[in-house]
Amino acid sequence: MTEIDIGKGKRGRRAYSFDDIAVVPSRRTRDPEDVSLSWQIDAYHFELPIIAAPMDSVVSPETAIAVGRLGGLGVLDLEGLWTRYDDPQAHLAEIADLEPARSTQRMRELYAAPIRPELIGERLRQVREAGVTVAGALSPQRTQQHWKAVVDAGVDLFLIRGTTVSAEHVSSHAEPLNLKRFIYELDVPVIVGGAGTYTAALHLMRTGAAGVLVGFGGGSAHRTRTTLGIHAPMATAIADIAAARRDYLDESGGRYVHVIADGGMGQSGDIVKAVACGADAVMIGAALARAQEAPGRGYHWGSEAHHPLMPRGGRVRVGTSGSLEEILLGPGRDADGTTNLMGALRRAMATTGYTDVKEFQRVEVVVSPY
Amino acid sequence: MTEIDIGKGKRGRRAYSFDDIAVVPSRRTRDPEDVSLSWQIDAYHFELPIIAAPMDSVVSPETAIAVGRLGGLGVLDLEGLWTRYDDPQAHLAEIADLEPARSTQRMRELYAAPIRPELIGERLRQVREAGVTVAGALSPQRTQQHWKAVVDAGVDLFLIRGTTVSAEHVSSHAEPLNLKRFIYELDVPVIVGGAGTYTAALHLMRTGAAGVLVGFGGGSAHRTRTTLGIHAPMATAIADIAAARRDYLDESGGRYVHVIADGGMGQSGDIVKAVACGADAVMIGAALARAQEAPGRGYHWGSEAHHPLMPRGGRVRVGTSGSLEEILLGPGRDADGTTNLMGALRRAMATTGYTDVKEFQRVEVVVSPY
Amino acid sequence: MTEIDIGKGKRGRRAYSFDDIAVVPSRRTRDPEDVSLSWQIDAYHFELPIIAAPMDSVVSPETAIAVGRLGGLGVLDLEGLWTRYDDPQAHLAEIADLEPARSTQRMRELYAAPIRPELIGERLRQVREAGVTVAGALSPQRTQQHWKAVVDAGVDLFLIRGTTVSAEHVSSHAEPLNLKRFIYELDVPVIVGGAGTYTAALHLMRTGAAGVLVGFGGGSAHRTRTTLGIHAPMATAIADIAAARRDYLDESGGRYVHVIADGGMGQSGDIVKAVACGADAVMIGAALARAQEAPGRGYHWGSEAHHPLMPRGGRVRVGTSGSLEEILLGPGRDADGTTNLMGALRRAMATTGYTDVKEFQRVEVVVSPY
Amino acid sequence: MTEIDIGKGKRGRRAYSFDDIAVVPSRRTRDPEDVSLSWQIDAYHFELPIIAAPMDSVVSPETAIAVGRLGGLGVLDLEGLWTRYDDPQAHLAEIADLEPARSTQRMRELYAAPIRPELIGERLRQVREAGVTVAGALSPQRTQQHWKAVVDAGVDLFLIRGTTVSAEHVSSHAEPLNLKRFIYELDVPVIVGGAGTYTAALHLMRTGAAGVLVGFGGGSAHRTRTTLGIHAPMATAIADIAAARRDYLDESGGRYVHVIADGGMGQSGDIVKAVACGADAVMIGAALARAQEAPGRGYHWGSEAHHPLMPRGGRVRVGTSGSLEEILLGPGRDADGTTNLMGALRRAMATTGYTDVKEFQRVEVVVSPY
Repeated sequence: MTEIDIGKGKRGRRAYSFDDIAVVPSRRTRDPEDVSLSWQIDAYHFELPIIAAPMDSVVSPETAIAVGRLGGLGVLDLEGLWTRYDDPQAHLAEIADLEPARSTQRMRELYAAPIRPELIGERLRQVREAGVTVAGALSPQRTQQHWKAVVDAGVDLFLIRGTTVSAEHVSSHAEPLNLKRFIYELDVPVIVGGAGTYTAALHLMRTGAAGVLVGFGGGSAHRTRTTLGIHAPMATAIADIAAARRDYLDESGGRYVHVIADGGMGQSGDIVKAVACGADAVMIGAALARAQEAPGRGYHWGSEAHHPLMPRGGRVRVGTSGSLEEILLGPGRDADGTTNLMGALRRAMATTGYTDVKEFQRVEVVVSPY
Repeated sequence: MTEIDIGKGKRGRRAYSFDDIAVVPSRRTRDPEDVSLSWQIDAYHFELPIIAAPMDSVVSPETAIAVGRLGGLGVLDLEGLWTRYDDPQAHLAEIADLEPARSTQRMRELYAAPIRPELIGERLRQVREAGVTVAGALSPQRTQQHWKAVVDAGVDLFLIRGTTVSAEHVSSHAEPLNLKRFIYELDVPVIVGGAGTYTAALHLMRTGAAGVLVGFGGGSAHRTRTTLGIHAPMATAIADIAAARRDYLDESGGRYVHVIADGGMGQSGDIVKAVACGADAVMIGAALARAQEAPGRGYHWGSEAHHPLMPRGGRVRVGTSGSLEEILLGPGRDADGTTNLMGALRRAMATTGYTDVKEFQRVEVVVSPY
Repeated sequence: MTEIDIGKGKRGRRAYSFDDIAVVPSRRTRDPEDVSLSWQIDAYHFELPIIAAPMDSVVSPETAIAVGRLGGLGVLDLEGLWTRYDDPQAHLAEIADLEPARSTQRMRELYAAPIRPELIGERLRQVREAGVTVAGALSPQRTQQHWKAVVDAGVDLFLIRGTTVSAEHVSSHAEPLNLKRFIYELDVPVIVGGAGTYTAALHLMRTGAAGVLVGFGGGSAHRTRTTLGIHAPMATAIADIAAARRDYLDESGGRYVHVIADGGMGQSGDIVKAVACGADAVMIGAALARAQEAPGRGYHWGSEAHHPLMPRGGRVRVGTSGSLEEILLGPGRDADGTTNLMGALRRAMATTGYTDVKEFQRVEVVVSPY
Repeated sequence: MTEIDIGKGKRGRRAYSFDDIAVVPSRRTRDPEDVSLSWQIDAYHFELPIIAAPMDSVVSPETAIAVGRLGGLGVLDLEGLWTRYDDPQAHLAEIADLEPARSTQRMRELYAAPIRPELIGERLRQVREAGVTVAGALSPQRTQQHWKAVVDAGVDLFLIRGTTVSAEHVSSHAEPLNLKRFIYELDVPVIVGGAGTYTAALHLMRTGAAGVLVGFGGGSAHRTRTTLGIHAPMATAIADIAAARRDYLDESGGRYVHVIADGGMGQSGDIVKAVACGADAVMIGAALARAQEAPGRGYHWGSEAHHPLMPRGGRVRVGTSGSLEEILLGPGRDADGTTNLMGALRRAMATTGYTDVKEFQRVEVVVSPY
């Protein structure tokens, strides 16, 4: 890795974002119909390597089901409005109508309502009954409090997702979650993150996680670089953590931990680049919040938008670009990279001569800032 | 080549676009009148190293003739409106009048009409009768279906042009075009592309092509970087493929395959840089769509704008900057680089001390992002 | 240090600004409540490593007291309106109301009034009586004339602050301030700057200064890069001067000179990066001029805005983002990085696994231009 | 010099513009009153190292006199309106009033009037009678035709200035100017340029020139990068040519050829950087066209704006920023770098510890793109 002298007393690596890189064609091309996008994690098979992010603007029980039927995975945020209110539709509509100046404060109030364990059960049951893979997410802070309700309700995949998650959280005030023991004792495959570096991801892999989310507040609803000065440019983060996957595969004698890019993929080309850097699948927020069916009604936000003390993002107007099916599978409406996300991945793979997602991680890329 | 660590698990080359580089003057200057811009490919001689791109917004039979008379080469898109309709003028006018929101959909409908082989013959005959070099282009997907109509009609130069074309297309559904055999059996010199890398171009050269188009959707009507994440920065792509030309010249014992830059040359300075990086000639779209005579009536689009499933570009408003003669030969109207394209190349060569295009490929350049 | 050839006759180092870098998370996370932000210089202890800049738009006697009570240090500009007028409130209000075209000229007139030594005493006394640490600043040009009034009034910390301050000022017209003798004879710890380079800072450390301000007109009210061509990118300047601190610590047998970043930290993320590069504390201007209590009433300016001959900055509209307490300690109002500055530092440290400011100087950073 | 692979077939140097670099302060500071800006070329002494560019928007006989009296040198364009018309004031006023769309065409007409040798004599006589240094410029194309009129009228300094000038111009149509013989036979010191590279400048030095202009169409009225693809980033060009000055000094056994930066210095900080890179003096266009006395009346243009075939620039609206005296010597009006240009240079030198222009060429710079 190239280290740069920032000054006589500090060095740092050069890191790259999606905008800094591009995939280049090679000597062979393929027929798009020969391309398979399928992805399997643990016992669960998906036609599309795409996960709808656990954010209230993206995933409701209904859209989780719809994404599942289209071939991907929808993950419900189990700390969102759906587990705090019997029927959050009016609250979702209210959020979409808020004046910008009022939005942070009012969202704080709406999200101050308590999480009700029985609603966790009810929401997950609704998804299960539709016959698709069931997945829910908690933040690391609330996993200890609510995981039992989740497991009792039954999930196929359990996600622990925070701005950053480490295998070693140190606190003098509260007994932190022992991820390794927790995952060992749980009977459900766990996906955990975000992680931004090789070391952080390697430690998460050693906890027994089935997958690691790569990212640190890089999504369109985040402003962690501005507020916290922290940033993990996605191309570098994915490539680093793909190396951790390879090294852990050797160290563990064959355990393949999935690398899932999470955040910063606003256009279909970014999904292509995420896989090119080593991702096995992608977790998508804003691009799916643009669906006609999305609960956000043209807006997008994450939990950081209503943090009681330290908001590090906001409610973002994303508009509507098509139906969920058009966004995932096309046909593309126009050429802005917001529809037919999976068709774009398929075509990019065909054009550069690859037929499966794992192979495509080896495609040649160039550095060429946009 | 300098390889950069994008992350621990991925490396990539640094690649450069035209905006990243500039030509620098040297110690000698020349009289512009001593500069020759002439270019010869196979038996065909041109006063200007410029090819009008086979796009409906640029080349009609009339403009193909006009470009030929001015000293360049006009290539007709044999899958465009001219081979689908007896008289496409009304359709061209309609496209220029479309509401932006409707344009993708309506263009899809217009381009859904079948290609009529007899019209291929008729259009090419019209150009031939005017006494200029006759050239037509097909996409690789449709070459097998229509090439015979083209050859029967008679062309001097045949182009196979797609977003990307490889010497080795693999498909389990259809027997792909065997480029090498096709070119060998054809009695007409073939120009093929686009190619974006040394290896892809070298393989195309080995098929027997007379020229290779360099580019991958870099034109102003393309958005492949946004939609597919694929990008071949033009300065690097041309320089790479010029090296393939040199290496193939040695390997073949003297066959010189022409390198033709295709896309991304919106201003006359870009044409200068394309030659400086190693191009023998340039294929121009948007800059010629700005001609008063252009069929696009101030708009510009390629076939990717009306792709049924995956549009990767759109109809772009380019305006009108002068007559075809003013655009190619001047006098320049103002200093925005859209008129007197060939005068600019002539002056740049004179100013840096060169008198022919081939020599000018050796001019000194600097890297200095704009 | 990497030297770059600018041309055959000139070399220069690559230098980095805050926008060029970002902090990256590591494998460990901490509980924000375990993080200590405390800072001690000489005998003075602060809960927050933050100094309000001696600028009339930021610090009045009242805001110096308020900042002190919140845990930081407010430094009064002893050459500002408060030591020129009995009651400058009307003048401050007038400045906020000036037409942009008139502002430079009218500020020159207002600041032409003489500095009155008895007002120096009165203003400092007011701060002392409030029970907080007392600090005042003079420019190097005026230190000889007014320092006695300052010392007689009594200060805990004395600042000598100019656009640039060197340990060796050479003049054939006036006997320059001998910093080393001055600091030696003074009975008060002195903070001096700005310095932009390792060598300049090392020489200042050798004068006996307790702290060195890092910066050269990088603040939002400065335009020294435009007007003078001089610029010391902050990330590099801090890292260089942190190395000078380390080297001087060794050379002096243990004297630790504090490195205080001064300028260019417009958002909370920049404060995080300043510490990450090696700063012990930060001096903040614009971000505090946005306080409801700020004397600038939504405007911000420094002494360079009313320089009689050579203005190198102007009165800048910064607006109002919250109360002083909200700006320093939160809760954050929204995610633009202008409120809860210290909460952001605390959270960034926790997220990356650090519990005290000194340790956090070792956090990993990446170079990734914004 | 670092060479970069643009692609496998092409290499190029990294080159830097003024915006890419900045001067950094050092450990010593000086009193601005101790700084001397004086400059001497051949027998001519100037208080200020500044030359007003031979452009009709900048230099009339009156402003040549005014610049001379303020301490600099004004150079009259001997191919401009002043040598084509008895009284060009009405034409200058007309140019300032032209509609943008009409300006190129109308300026072509105005500049089509013949150059009248007797007016060359009259204009230069007017400047000489005012008692300031007399200088006039011709383009290399017209030097042979008009130089005798210039020498007969009497000039102190003679400039041959074109977009690019080489020591070796090759033409099969016309006998080119033999610069070496011409300069040898002329009894007047000659300044010649622009040159953009070490080699071009070294050859010009060997012709016997007293000074070399560094630049290639970098001024605000030029668009050579857009139209011709040619660009010589100024920081690198000056540093290269300063090295040529040093090498020629050795080769010639002591002949010091002055390096004069010409173009691209829109703000006072750029003048500082030009000297820091090695310039002995600067030639200024746009910044002086902003004078109340400037003949351009708030507009600025060069001869390339009315080139009959190939305009490579235009008439640019620059506005008015103050009197000629305010622009050169201040007091500065505001902090945008357009007034008090020489005060800024003086202050930058003092702040970084230098007292004369030649020494200041050694000041430390950093690379830090703006």
